[in-house]
This record gives sequence, C-alpha cells and structure tokens, in this order.
Amino acid sequence: MLRNLAEHPGARNLDDDCAVIEFGRESLVLTHDMMTEGVHYLAGQDPADIAWKLVSVNMSDLAAKGAEPVGVLLGYMLVEDNTRFVVGLDEALTFYKVPLLGGDTVSGKGPQTLGLTAIGRATHRPVPSRAGAKAGDILYVTGSVGAAMMGMEALQSGDGDSLAYRRPDALLQQGQVLAPHVTAIMDISDGLLLDASRLAQASKLTMAIDSASVPIAAPEDRRDDAMRWGDDYQLLFTAPAGEAPPIPATQIGQALKPLKAPLLLDGKPVDAHAKLGYQH
Amino acid sequence: MLRNLAEHPGARNLDDDCAVIEFGRESLVLTHDMMTEGVHYLAGQDPADIAWKLVSVNMSDLAAKGAEPVGVLLGYMLVEDNTRFVVGLDEALTFYKVPLLGGDTVSGKGPQTLGLTAIGRATHRPVPSRAGAKAGDILYVTGSVGAAMMGMEALQSGDGDSLAYRRPDALLQQGQVLAPHVTAIMDISDGLLLDASRLAQASKLTMAIDSASVPIAAPEDRRDDAMRWGDDYQLLFTAPAGEAPPIPATQIGQALKPLKAPLLLDGKPVDAHAKLGYQH
Repeated sequence: MLRNLAEHPGARNLDDDCAVIEFGRESLVLTHDMMTEGVHYLAGQDPADIAWKLVSVNMSDLAAKGAEPVGVLLGYMLVEDNTRFVVGLDEALTFYKVPLLGGDTVSGKGPQTLGLTAIGRATHRPVPSRAGAKAGDILYVTGSVGAAMMGMEALQSGDGDSLAYRRPDALLQQGQVLAPHVTAIMDISDGLLLDASRLAQASKLTMAIDSASVPIAAPEDRRDDAMRWGDDYQLLFTAPAGEAPPIPATQIGQALKPLKAPLLLDGKPVDAHAKLGYQH
Repeated sequence: MLRNLAEHPGARNLDDDCAVIEFGRESLVLTHDMMTEGVHYLAGQDPADIAWKLVSVNMSDLAAKGAEPVGVLLGYMLVEDNTRFVVGLDEALTFYKVPLLGGDTVSGKGPQTLGLTAIGRATHRPVPSRAGAKAGDILYVTGSVGAAMMGMEALQSGDGDSLAYRRPDALLQQGQVLAPHVTAIMDISDGLLLDASRLAQASKLTMAIDSASVPIAAPEDRRDDAMRWGDDYQLLFTAPAGEAPPIPATQIGQALKPLKAPLLLDGKPVDAHAKLGYQH
C-alpha cells in the first residue's frame, strides 16, 4: 500500500488495489503489483509459477472491479536464465487472454524484483469498490480459503499438491457477473480476516463474521490459519439481504452499523492491530 | 526492452517505449520504466532526485507520443527512510501536474528497485512513433545533448552543476506541439547515436548524421561522448524537408533510403554492434 507515500496533494484512491479513471467515455481500471524474491515467492521456485502468480494477482485486482483485462506492462529484473519465466508468462497471458503491451527490463544484483501493471476496462458502472457496503448487507465469499496455505506447505515439505499456491486463478468472469449486484467487493489477497476488516473500514461499518460458516480448503484444526492466510484470490463481497448472488458464494457474515471494532469474529471484536493476515 | 521476453503470441509493440491502445474512442498511451540502484542511479544519491528522475523518464516517453499525462502508478521498494523520496515525488508530480493513482510497495533486501507506470492520453492521432520516417526527411533534435553527462561527472567529482543529471525535464509541451508535424519521433534516453539508430531501424531506412551540427552542452573535445551519452531526454524527430518545425530544433541529419548500416556519422557507417550509448 502506498498510504505512507501518499501525503502529497496529487495522490488519490490509494486505499484501493485499483485506480479507476474516466477515459474516453469508459472507465479505465489500473493496478500495479510488485513481487520480491524471498517475500512474495520462495527463492528457488519455478520462475514459470512466479510469472503465473504475478499475472494472476493483478488479474485478481481487475476481477474485483468487474473489469475485463486489456493488457499488461511488465517490469522485469533479468536473471541468468529467463526461459522458464517466459514460459509461465506465456501460459498466464494465454489463459487470461491478455496481451503483453510493453514494459521494461533491468539488470540488477540481489533478490529479483518484479512488477506488473494491468489495464482493464470496467464492464459495469459505477465500478464497485470496497466502500459501498451498508449495514444489514450480507457478506459472501466465493470458493474457499486455505488452499494456498496448504499448497505452500506442500511445496515447502515436498509432499502434497502445491498447485493452489503456485498457480492461483483470478476470478475475472465471476467479478464481471457480480459487479452489478454487489454493494462492495474486493479480492482476498492478504487473508480473509484482514481483507474483511479493510472492507469494513472502507465502508465505515463493522463486519460480523461467523467463523464456522467460512468454507475452508484445509483440515478443521487449521480453520483459524486458513482465515488469516492470503494468496487464495477469492472474491469477498456484500449484497443486500434477500438478494441471492448470481454465482455460487457462501454467506459468512453480515454488515452492522459501525461499532468500535471494524470486525467481529463470532461476536467478539478482533484487534485491528493483531496480525490478521499477510501484510506486505 | 522486452524483446528477449516477447516471443509469445500475445506480445506486441515491444520495440517502442510506449504502448498505444484504442480505449473508449481515445488513444491511451502507456509506459513503464524501472530504475535500479547502482545501474540507473548512484547509491547514496538524494532519493528526491531519484523520484524526480523516475517520473521524468516516464513523462519523456509520453512526450514522444504527444501525450498528456493522466496519472502514474508507483512500484516502490521501501528503504529505511522514505522521506526524501516522497519529497521528490511530490515535486515531480506537482511539476508535471499528474496525479499518483496507486501502485504497490514492497519490503526488500539488496539494491532498491523502482518502477513507474505512466498513463497518458494522446492529443494527436494517429499517434506518432519511431517508425514513420521517410527517405528525404530531415532529422532534428531539440535542445542539446551532453548536459546530463557533464552533470553526472559534476555529481561524482563534487565540483560543478549536476542539475541536468539529477533533475531532467521531460518535454511534454514540445511533444504535443510536434506530434501533428513529425513523421517519426522518440525521446533520447540512451544516447543520440543509439536512439537515432533505433529510429532508423524502426523506419527501415538509414539515418545520416552530421556530427558538427549536433548541439552539445559539453566542451568540444567531449562531442563524441555527448552524442553517445544518455539521460538528456531531448526529442529526436523527423519531418519532411521544407517544413520548418513548430518549435526550436536543430537540423542534424537526413533520412536516406536503406543502406547496409542504419546509421551514417559524417558519411561513414557506424557499427551497430559498437557501444553507441547507454544500453540497459
């Protein structure tokens, strides 16, 4: 997040993952995510998976705006052998049907740093944001959380299926279908609880989550971890009570009038300063 | 440049500094430049100057398209003290009247890597590129070259004026005025000779440069260095013979039908494989 860099007058919209600007009678949706070796991916991971993830995290930001991707710009720090990165990039761009429009490469020493800018076109206006939830709205999540956590542990141990961690899917189609129906929406990149807390704060209310209702892709004794782990790229959204979402999603809580805490878990306030997820 | 990463079918336009796409009945101009400590700036340089340069190099790419800036997205690797960077960023964004729309920050070890995406709106269509020069066109350059070289040497020696190196100006207004009048245009970021050679290759012809006519902001015995050094961010463009450019610019050469070499300097072929400028 750029909030700590954003004290000058020109800054705007910096609480959101995406910028939305009006451009030529359309809404342009822009996002830029960086990844650094050792922070966002493990040293020694297959560069094809790193490329896939770099594209997916940006596509997921577009998904949360109901935007269709128009293109990407890559900022790439060259390493000795770039072959596998190109393979994974190609696979991801083909999967998401998005062209590489340009970018830059640099030589560099030290851990590799990558950046990707994704450009999208909003399919629904007004473009939904984190800030529109109203008290009484129902909170939903697509799919389940915890798969990436289990996948990372599998990758580290060398035992089990690591695909969900290595190759997350951004839910572009789901975001486009949801956009006209939601009051607020975001993708879960940093953990369900942390991101739900952000949605509550952006919407200036309190979100009450029932932990038992959260679908997890992990053993039951890992439920708490699964709700605090990131990298699943599911969509978290609110919609008015009584209006069923147009795609499969699970009701996990409800928006309340603002209380002292932005987030209640099973009725108890969650300390906003506690580590809720992966803050980077 | 991304050419070495761009073998997959989705890639396009990667020979240019900018991508131009049609969006909502307008032409959207996009560019992304990276800078790495020790490669693009000196370790220990004032971060305010680094921020200024990061913004300026991207604004210069927009200038060469005759585009007006709409916003920027920043990819920033946090360091211990980010204060001076924010100061310089603020100064640059205020100078170019462009808002910070968003971006990302990462923590990281090792040399700092920065990225900036600039988004612009073309003021003239078709948007000019490097590829439109015709045999017989005159080659022009704005201002002079070599000031950044002298500035960098002043910064390194601690003696003399380093402003041209530390705080380059992108020629946004000049680019917008030139766009309807040029057959090809680019900014000089990597050295006059290297960039002129690229313009010639993109336009599929040979460019003949008269070295004595090149305005230099350096002692006469540094003329050759000044033509090979980058970071001046002047505009290099071609226009039909007999049509005076609408802004001050110096005639430095002429486009010829394609010969074996893309570039002739004082009538002699220049080896395209020789180090002509700052290739990064």
